[in-house]
Amino acid sequence: MSESSSVGVVSPKTAHFSEPLTLKSGAVLPAFDLIYENYGKLNADSSNAILVCHALSGTHHLAGKYREDDKYPGWWDNMIGPGKPLDTDRFFIIGVNNLGGCHGSTGPISTNPATNKPWGSSFPVVTVEDWVAAQARLANHLGINAFAAVMGGSLGGMQALQWTLSYPARVRHALVIAAAPNLTAQNIAFNEVARQAILTDPEFFGGDFYEHDVVPRRGLRLARMLGHITYLSDDAMGEKFGRKLKHDEVEYSFDVEFEMESYLRYQGDKFAGEFDANTYLRMTRALDYFDPALAFDGDLSAALKVAQAEFLIVSFTSDWRFSPARSREIVKALLENERRVSYAELTAQHGHDAFLMPDEHYHAVIRAYLERVG
Amino acid sequence: MSESSSVGVVSPKTAHFSEPLTLKSGAVLPAFDLIYENYGKLNADSSNAILVCHALSGTHHLAGKYREDDKYPGWWDNMIGPGKPLDTDRFFIIGVNNLGGCHGSTGPISTNPATNKPWGSSFPVVTVEDWVAAQARLANHLGINAFAAVMGGSLGGMQALQWTLSYPARVRHALVIAAAPNLTAQNIAFNEVARQAILTDPEFFGGDFYEHDVVPRRGLRLARMLGHITYLSDDAMGEKFGRKLKHDEVEYSFDVEFEMESYLRYQGDKFAGEFDANTYLRMTRALDYFDPALAFDGDLSAALKVAQAEFLIVSFTSDWRFSPARSREIVKALLENERRVSYAELTAQHGHDAFLMPDEHYHAVIRAYLERVG
Repeated sequence: MSESSSVGVVSPKTAHFSEPLTLKSGAVLPAFDLIYENYGKLNADSSNAILVCHALSGTHHLAGKYREDDKYPGWWDNMIGPGKPLDTDRFFIIGVNNLGGCHGSTGPISTNPATNKPWGSSFPVVTVEDWVAAQARLANHLGINAFAAVMGGSLGGMQALQWTLSYPARVRHALVIAAAPNLTAQNIAFNEVARQAILTDPEFFGGDFYEHDVVPRRGLRLARMLGHITYLSDDAMGEKFGRKLKHDEVEYSFDVEFEMESYLRYQGDKFAGEFDANTYLRMTRALDYFDPALAFDGDLSAALKVAQAEFLIVSFTSDWRFSPARSREIVKALLENERRVSYAELTAQHGHDAFLMPDEHYHAVIRAYLERVG
Repeated sequence: MSESSSVGVVSPKTAHFSEPLTLKSGAVLPAFDLIYENYGKLNADSSNAILVCHALSGTHHLAGKYREDDKYPGWWDNMIGPGKPLDTDRFFIIGVNNLGGCHGSTGPISTNPATNKPWGSSFPVVTVEDWVAAQARLANHLGINAFAAVMGGSLGGMQALQWTLSYPARVRHALVIAAAPNLTAQNIAFNEVARQAILTDPEFFGGDFYEHDVVPRRGLRLARMLGHITYLSDDAMGEKFGRKLKHDEVEYSFDVEFEMESYLRYQGDKFAGEFDANTYLRMTRALDYFDPALAFDGDLSAALKVAQAEFLIVSFTSDWRFSPARSREIVKALLENERRVSYAELTAQHGHDAFLMPDEHYHAVIRAYLERVG
């Protein structure tokens, strides 16, 4: 094992796809761009590629920095690099911004060639299946017939699972981390409150706020604050913030009194200044709709029958968004199909966010699994 | 045990208190009204009175109807009446709308005599201690020196607990149901998102929306939708709604797709048309601030030392808002003080809402406890 280090300064690339893409909804995208990054070297027979799918607010920028003096590296820099669990000395690793995203791939903020205005409200609803279809085009573009592995956490894990169903022959290993085979009613409920915050923001203008030169910041901010509650466990919040006050004394006001409030407001404000509201709506809807078992009368085992990949399923004990029980449903359905599946239920304090954390045990599991991926 | 029935048609009364009340914040209310209802008869030595404290969105209207053709009775009608667990054949039962409320007691929608305009933003922040102090004035007004019992669920349970600390000699029994000795960071976080939804609603006007003839409906609606997520358990939501669709087919839109969404929107809309935004802010802040142990360096046992009442503490297994573990903290602190305490941890599906449900076992516990209350 080499000493782990950074992939260094990286830069994204854009691939243009001019063949129309028919989405699950029936809508057709006449053409689209995908922005992506890659790290490591594709080997001679293109057999060492790993696709990393991002979650709700993630991007294609997985690792490294854009400039030496960047304050923050890509969102999974602790996992990806020379000598790291996703070892760039061995693998060719790809990150791609999903269709409908707001970081460079075609999405609501892109110009609709038919109108020369931003797509806005007219950008179609996209699904996990659509993302996977678009990612497959990128694989073709890069000359990758089959991935050594497709992986991701949360919504990214759902994409990894969907890959094994949409393109069974093109995935040798799927790493499905902190994910679920579909959302529960409670998961949908949280998404709905977040969406309603955005949809009812007067500055949303039905999704066409770009033309009004405003941003539905209030809605996005609330959506993100709420999201953060579901990403952290009650215990983790208790440990990090507890009932700590911001000031020495209670001020009997609706300003920040508790550190917890300060954290949420900061996260909300930051996100509202960076993320696109239309993308947020679409990402949460993709989560809601994901349900491979639906076409099989709710029989997940029947739904996963087509998969040929080997699987690593990972869950975290304190994750109440996608609890270990949801991961076990996937494991059970795979075992019923006699698929090769490894399962790790990791003790973790950080709730759903644990999939992003540099936990030693977690990283060891990913590393060990990938060591057997040829 | 007589056959249980309704208290019938009831009507509220209003008591006016002209002596100023100094609140915990230091603010002074020059005078105030409390609206209340009572059921059953106060006995000769005024020893059979039970005060029922309401939760966040509750009212003084506990039982019975205002007119024979009212669609709904008071919010705890299943618990209160002749032959019911809170038996009006035995007890004189009082419900009171808390100070700062919006159902008839002095609150933000009331006219500030100093300005002849609604209090609005200038209505002070109220605390659980303030409510109890105001309720004590009502007890004086009714000639009740000591309550047979003070009780409530959720925030109502916190008031019952506070009664035993503020007026130890005036409470013989305290029934603290589905409550907690203070809020966790996660509890505070949910309150904060709800408050931010209201505070950032452009129609809130800093709390003085009355003058603008608008209501911050969007904010209140979001606050209530979010609240409902925390009132129900994940399992209860799963059982009631699961992933059931509203229409036969998915429509790939941001309109209602799932029954879960329909329910939340309905609850949110209903509440936004009924409840006052300024009251909501104050009720959630009262929850945040409640923390009897704070003045005792976090030592709950020391904080409860002053209590003289006997206690029934009740929790519900699926309540993730105020989990059984939080109730057990109260039980432990009471036991450390060698107080008489009964504790029931009830198996329930309905999450936090279980305290409102007519569960047979739950009602039997309350009934049995009150049977020994002389």
